[in-house]
Amino acid sequence: MKKDFVVTPWEVKGDIDYEKLTRDFGVKHLDDKILKGLEKEAGELHYFLKRKIFFAHTYFDEILAEAKKGNKFYLYTGRAPSGPVHLGHLVPWIFTRWLQDKFGATLLFQIPDEEKFLFKDNLTFDDTKKWAYENTLDIIAMGFDPKKTKVFLDTEYAGHMYKTACMVAKRTNISTLKSLFGLKDSNNVGEFFYTCMQSVPAFLPTIMENEPTRCLIPCAIDQDVHFRLTRDVAAGIGFPKPATILSRFLPGLTEGGKMSSSIENTAIFSTDSENVVRDKIMRYAFSGGRESAAEHRKTGGVPEVDVSYQYLTYFLEDSNKLKKIYDDYKSGKMLTGELKQITVDTINEFLSEHRARREEAKTRIEDFMLRD
Amino acid sequence: MKKDFVVTPWEVKGDIDYEKLTRDFGVKHLDDKILKGLEKEAGELHYFLKRKIFFAHTYFDEILAEAKKGNKFYLYTGRAPSGPVHLGHLVPWIFTRWLQDKFGATLLFQIPDEEKFLFKDNLTFDDTKKWAYENTLDIIAMGFDPKKTKVFLDTEYAGHMYKTACMVAKRTNISTLKSLFGLKDSNNVGEFFYTCMQSVPAFLPTIMENEPTRCLIPCAIDQDVHFRLTRDVAAGIGFPKPATILSRFLPGLTEGGKMSSSIENTAIFSTDSENVVRDKIMRYAFSGGRESAAEHRKTGGVPEVDVSYQYLTYFLEDSNKLKKIYDDYKSGKMLTGELKQITVDTINEFLSEHRARREEAKTRIEDFMLRD
Repeated sequence: MKKDFVVTPWEVKGDIDYEKLTRDFGVKHLDDKILKGLEKEAGELHYFLKRKIFFAHTYFDEILAEAKKGNKFYLYTGRAPSGPVHLGHLVPWIFTRWLQDKFGATLLFQIPDEEKFLFKDNLTFDDTKKWAYENTLDIIAMGFDPKKTKVFLDTEYAGHMYKTACMVAKRTNISTLKSLFGLKDSNNVGEFFYTCMQSVPAFLPTIMENEPTRCLIPCAIDQDVHFRLTRDVAAGIGFPKPATILSRFLPGLTEGGKMSSSIENTAIFSTDSENVVRDKIMRYAFSGGRESAAEHRKTGGVPEVDVSYQYLTYFLEDSNKLKKIYDDYKSGKMLTGELKQITVDTINEFLSEHRARREEAKTRIEDFMLRD
Repeated sequence: MKKDFVVTPWEVKGDIDYEKLTRDFGVKHLDDKILKGLEKEAGELHYFLKRKIFFAHTYFDEILAEAKKGNKFYLYTGRAPSGPVHLGHLVPWIFTRWLQDKFGATLLFQIPDEEKFLFKDNLTFDDTKKWAYENTLDIIAMGFDPKKTKVFLDTEYAGHMYKTACMVAKRTNISTLKSLFGLKDSNNVGEFFYTCMQSVPAFLPTIMENEPTRCLIPCAIDQDVHFRLTRDVAAGIGFPKPATILSRFLPGLTEGGKMSSSIENTAIFSTDSENVVRDKIMRYAFSGGRESAAEHRKTGGVPEVDVSYQYLTYFLEDSNKLKKIYDDYKSGKMLTGELKQITVDTINEFLSEHRARREEAKTRIEDFMLRD
């Protein structure tokens, strides 16, 4: 029986029913028509789309229509700096990079350092500053185009954001925020105000271009609630509504829900060494295998619940290989140990390249930062 | 019988009982000991102090102790730009100028443009920008030292304020703000958050000097509630508590409470012509005179309730002259028409000089603005 699930921007747990989430959040599926339209504009479909890892959207059809007309749009995503980046964080960024490549879009990369400061009791701005630096290395390592990518910290870039945040705030009362985010009178006022700052980069394209310019936000579906508010206030302020394209959560090693730095043994970090990655997957990755090798050979494994297999759907691009692994694991031909070994190798190959680019990023930070 | 009174940062009405206000707000009277200490440090007492126009404080004794030790402190006051400046606004500025002269203190002059935007339904940021410019002319016309005065708009200077505002916000929950300011769930989140931005300039001296530096805030007593919150959070963030020195309200022409731009016929604006000033005082200033000249001659007037006389206590520096006017009006020797004429002349002389300096200020704005 499935566990109940919770999905808010600050908490994701349980067995997530993405169908229910799509209905509850009032977002749409990325249907065949949209995917065909995207394939036509982009020349191909990213495997995240074919595998329904990115599966839902709001107004993405309008973004495609703009692209078809040759009109530019911006991309906007973000990273709240409270700890090291894990594989789950990289998923929307991989896809964002693909969108930038295909559409030549300018990317606004928000680092909302105040968000984590406001929501985490013991986190200081010294902590967020350190993590903002570390996380920026991961962002740059994704291979974004430095000419078309602007990374900024909210507390540093606030001079260009606060006024627009006030325009959002003027249209957003406390009742609405309680209902959208489950906040209470005992929450601090920064926790209430923060979402106004998260709206702002959706409007910066229009401000920067000085004409109405659409914005597409690739992110995990838990963030859509922020942008529901953004969509609700946009027209009143005189900005076009942002679009979102929404992903599932990369599961944590030991359980459902999503990979999370704050739940022990669920996360693989971008800076984990090859041995650490091997150890984590071998020891903690929830297995869809059977009690014994003999039984597994006989009845076969369950790739649908096997976390190692799930990771391959995110990180193994070769769909033929993936199909064969699925079939072999399901039939019992492949044992859990072998599957885990493939996952270890796949992730270590990915991370080995990532870490090299991350190291190189240390000399390139100023190419990406939006200062003043 | 006295009317009930209300004093919040957004509403002042009724017959104000300053004794009750002092108790309710938990502030202290400026007693003889403090005034003697101030006279010793400053070399003299401003007549606003002798006449109890500035009458209350928090921690001003500690500011004096710092000054005595030769330690610097900053001044901080402000002006929310939603309309023209009237005489009531100038009162704390006159006193702030005197403090700057006497102590050589740096003055931070906040223009919280977002405050009025957030609290007034129909006010736009185009409006606040226009009024910020107009009001800055009045500020400069006060004669502040350009080398020691930094004027800034919140929406422009937010890059240097938002982070500190978040530190205040993290320590301030919605319940506290409801209780301090009477805000409700139907108020917008900017109205709740704004006070955090009003706290920030109290901490900027320490940030700018990079060592603990006290701040003294001269303002009307309705603003103290903002700084009560500032005092409550200061130590937790690691900043010294700000001190306040608090004034009564300049009464409106027609009634008690305070002069207000939003109540018709109560305000004399800094840009009012001599004829307009004359007309407003002659027509609207509430009189402490009697029904007929004959009765007035016989029983005398009541200077305590006469608005023209009250204005003289603010704008006529010569205490001997003021005493004589008081006596003559009270005895019936001076009629209301004569008293009003003196007030018209006194205010017009003050405003005539002010307007000349205000005109000249148009070429000096950049000498005062804190940019970047």
